[in-house]
Amino acid sequence: MARLYHVPLSPFCRKVRLVLAEKKIEVDLVEERYWEREMDFLRRNPAGKVPVLKIDDLTLAESTPICEYLEETRPEPRLIPQDAAGRHEVRRLVCWFDDKFHQEVTSKLLYERVNKKITKSGYPDSSAVKAGSKAIKYHLDYMGWLLDQRRWLAGDAMTLADFSAAAHFSALDYISDVDWNRVPAVRDWYAKIKSRPAFRNILADQVPGFPPPQHYADLDF
Amino acid sequence: MARLYHVPLSPFCRKVRLVLAEKKIEVDLVEERYWEREMDFLRRNPAGKVPVLKIDDLTLAESTPICEYLEETRPEPRLIPQDAAGRHEVRRLVCWFDDKFHQEVTSKLLYERVNKKITKSGYPDSSAVKAGSKAIKYHLDYMGWLLDQRRWLAGDAMTLADFSAAAHFSALDYISDVDWNRVPAVRDWYAKIKSRPAFRNILADQVPGFPPPQHYADLDF
Repeated sequence: MARLYHVPLSPFCRKVRLVLAEKKIEVDLVEERYWEREMDFLRRNPAGKVPVLKIDDLTLAESTPICEYLEETRPEPRLIPQDAAGRHEVRRLVCWFDDKFHQEVTSKLLYERVNKKITKSGYPDSSAVKAGSKAIKYHLDYMGWLLDQRRWLAGDAMTLADFSAAAHFSALDYISDVDWNRVPAVRDWYAKIKSRPAFRNILADQVPGFPPPQHYADLDF
Repeated sequence: MARLYHVPLSPFCRKVRLVLAEKKIEVDLVEERYWEREMDFLRRNPAGKVPVLKIDDLTLAESTPICEYLEETRPEPRLIPQDAAGRHEVRRLVCWFDDKFHQEVTSKLLYERVNKKITKSGYPDSSAVKAGSKAIKYHLDYMGWLLDQRRWLAGDAMTLADFSAAAHFSALDYISDVDWNRVPAVRDWYAKIKSRPAFRNILADQVPGFPPPQHYADLDF
């Protein structure tokens, strides 16, 4: 069976978990305390990061390359369309969330408030938290603008771009950092993706010391 | 003709320029002062970043998605192999350089010493420069380890991973921040890739206020 080394609230690990579940690939989940940089783990991935996926006798690292591998070897259901322009739009938005949103929002809210405590690497920087709370509004508005023109973020079909975004939003929702009332179209989009069977496992996550809010696992949030 | 909005020393723009040149796609280069966030530019890419490529009546953003688009629409010469495991290894290493190396080295050396001056956003932080100078040694050693087993970084053929790495190294070499004597295998690799016709345009770059060192454009550096 495939084995995924992961951390529960990591948006990059969550993206891979969503893709694995959507494609109905069974996987053993192993929590990895990557910040302790244990030698066995560094042998699996010299970058010292999660996710790491063992599958098909290979050890794969980096979340988007892992998802591209799964798409190429298990194409059903398709999460990246087949035309070049559509493929680019999906990948552009995956970068938007994993690079820009990650830097401006996730790292400033989730990492300051949760990761620093778990990895015992300091206290939340309140100016970072404030910047993250401000930036998420701009991103919600951009997503609302996309969803005014499309059923899903990258077009009329659900794609890896939606899973990338949902992975970040679900991790932020775990600590109640999303104002779902700001943009109704984004709330509806999240309700749709959250109700997929692939999401169940993620909604059952429990991080010691950080109980999720009531609405986190509620499909009618 | 295709048009690339770029900044000369940006490793992400250089990666796209190398891929365009290797695939013999003619392109107009337009320098973009992205930090001034001009409205026309934000309309082209709401992320406010370079590179942006106009091609085939599309406006493409994000360097790796742009390169994947070029590979899919202009497959000759191939820069990503055809087997799924080989494709993953190329993409993993592209992430290594564009994410890990960028964060630990490029942003700490190039951005502190050059970008801050060009964009008038402050003075170099000497502790960042020191951390970058230390981290590049570890990366050179990792590349040496890869090149002990392979002719190119991701295998026995030259791929996008080599262009991604060479884009970062060429930008750092412009400010003499690479110790080419540390790992002979990396020096030989860089000499090989630097002598390709695709590299010529990059070796002719001139950034006002930052004249390149003598060895920068020298193929026998």
